[in-house]
Amino acid sequence: MEGSTNLRILITGAAGFLGQKLTRALCGNAAKSAPTELVLWDHLPVQAPPEWAGPVRLVQGDLLQPENLQAAFAQGLDVVFHLAAVVSAQAEAEFDLGLRVNLDGTRTLLEACRGLQAPPVFVTTSSVAAFGGDVPVPVPDDQAPTPRSTYGTTKVIGELLVNDFSRKGFIDGRVLRLPTITVRPGKPNKAASSFASGIIREPLNGDRSNCPIAENTPLWLMSPRRAVDALVRAAGIPASVLGDDRVITLPGLTATPAEMVGALERIAGAETAGRVTWRRDPAIEAIVSTWPGAFQAVRARELGFEADASIDEIVRAYMEDDL
Amino acid sequence: MEGSTNLRILITGAAGFLGQKLTRALCGNAAKSAPTELVLWDHLPVQAPPEWAGPVRLVQGDLLQPENLQAAFAQGLDVVFHLAAVVSAQAEAEFDLGLRVNLDGTRTLLEACRGLQAPPVFVTTSSVAAFGGDVPVPVPDDQAPTPRSTYGTTKVIGELLVNDFSRKGFIDGRVLRLPTITVRPGKPNKAASSFASGIIREPLNGDRSNCPIAENTPLWLMSPRRAVDALVRAAGIPASVLGDDRVITLPGLTATPAEMVGALERIAGAETAGRVTWRRDPAIEAIVSTWPGAFQAVRARELGFEADASIDEIVRAYMEDDL
Repeated sequence: MEGSTNLRILITGAAGFLGQKLTRALCGNAAKSAPTELVLWDHLPVQAPPEWAGPVRLVQGDLLQPENLQAAFAQGLDVVFHLAAVVSAQAEAEFDLGLRVNLDGTRTLLEACRGLQAPPVFVTTSSVAAFGGDVPVPVPDDQAPTPRSTYGTTKVIGELLVNDFSRKGFIDGRVLRLPTITVRPGKPNKAASSFASGIIREPLNGDRSNCPIAENTPLWLMSPRRAVDALVRAAGIPASVLGDDRVITLPGLTATPAEMVGALERIAGAETAGRVTWRRDPAIEAIVSTWPGAFQAVRARELGFEADASIDEIVRAYMEDDL
Repeated sequence: MEGSTNLRILITGAAGFLGQKLTRALCGNAAKSAPTELVLWDHLPVQAPPEWAGPVRLVQGDLLQPENLQAAFAQGLDVVFHLAAVVSAQAEAEFDLGLRVNLDGTRTLLEACRGLQAPPVFVTTSSVAAFGGDVPVPVPDDQAPTPRSTYGTTKVIGELLVNDFSRKGFIDGRVLRLPTITVRPGKPNKAASSFASGIIREPLNGDRSNCPIAENTPLWLMSPRRAVDALVRAAGIPASVLGDDRVITLPGLTATPAEMVGALERIAGAETAGRVTWRRDPAIEAIVSTWPGAFQAVRARELGFEADASIDEIVRAYMEDDL
């Protein structure tokens, strides 16, 4: 992102937790590459962070509405962070909505980027949900995706579209396959992995939280802090370094729910950790237990992406950043 | 396909060479599983084979036109062979058309299948073009697709959609990753691999034909005969045998253009083989040389799919079937 005079940045899903944290990170990034304009788009109401004094455009509404696309793209864009998506359990329950937002929405945005004067840097996210069923663990970088959910399917299709739009020179794309992000601030959501944040966040807030999967299920985890770092880093990698393959499987940290609650107990005490209950939910387990608990992520490490050092670090990052 | 009282079969791309050969094979298949109705759909005019005396509906026009979908689906369908596609070099030259037919067309057809009373068997094709760039050869079954063409990209997206529509119970899908089909009868077409048929077919017809790639480039080949056998076989495999992974990389035969022309010389003489010219075409080479020349195809062999035994057999099959 360096070297541009203009740095007009669009963030979709800007009202989501990752969108908000990314927006704040970009605003605080003044020394290196300050945005010259922010465009924040979400289907929910969205606001610029209070510390942002520069120009901002706020767009609220559907990704597929032409007037919203017009509002977001009319002044030109240099970098697009596309984070808007229907999450895993919701896409599983609402198939048509999942395809509409995750597939049609992403494609519409890619087409709008293609209409810009110069191809923008386009950063979006894929997921551990690209894999399910019987794959070798840790998953090699060149393992064929085997999504076993509509969410994972649409994410892999997004990877393919970003690669081909990049190859054609319509965008300069990057797709990060994110681990399960924990600890996500806020309320539980419709992601099948919502519990992975809930079992840390709710007990720290004095509330009970249920873990719906077996306590020894390995999960591939990353803190919101590292995820935001990764998004910013991804935007800055020269296209020539990436070549034709714009998909990067991020490094993560493997931990089980039992290990996560163990860290919570070390940091916040037995009473807090005791607020976690363990009632399994087959619908959640059917999705989450198919996600691999470890990836090789060789390419990402070579590109400088980093995993969290420990589950304790992840819990402490949440307490520092969000509590 | 056995055990049904009704066997209403739709073939899209029915006017193409594979569509025509498949139609004839199904019509001649009376003993085992005779269709009770044929629906033949193409953007070009299409006719039922003369030997077919049963009911037939002919649909001519765009895959995305609601009235065509209505005409094809209104009486119900039990098996769909979806062969209609924009081929490789054309999709590379006409990006929007490639996405419209290969992605939107396939998705529209899948949605129409979802609207049927019972999920139909849905057989479609992917391609060696799912792979490009740096992949291990022979390509393992679980190698991550790396399409380096818009054609390959849309074919892999089709694989993902068929898998997810099957998982959801909307269809009972099967996708065959076809080798380069040779010897295709008829005229050259806009497939980048058109020459792989042309260098056998045209000399046998007394015409010159150019090979646009290096004579020692390994190609992964299959005769139309084997491809039709594979489509029929794919429709008959029980869903329980396939499970969640509906994509089958077919076995093929590795041969270089030099070896192909060598077979032509053995079978038809030096004068015939001498009609092949060797002027390289960078645009064709850029697409074809990224396709791997060999695949492991372990799963397909276990499922009973077979490769041609030799390039001589492929040339002779063309002479018997089409000359």
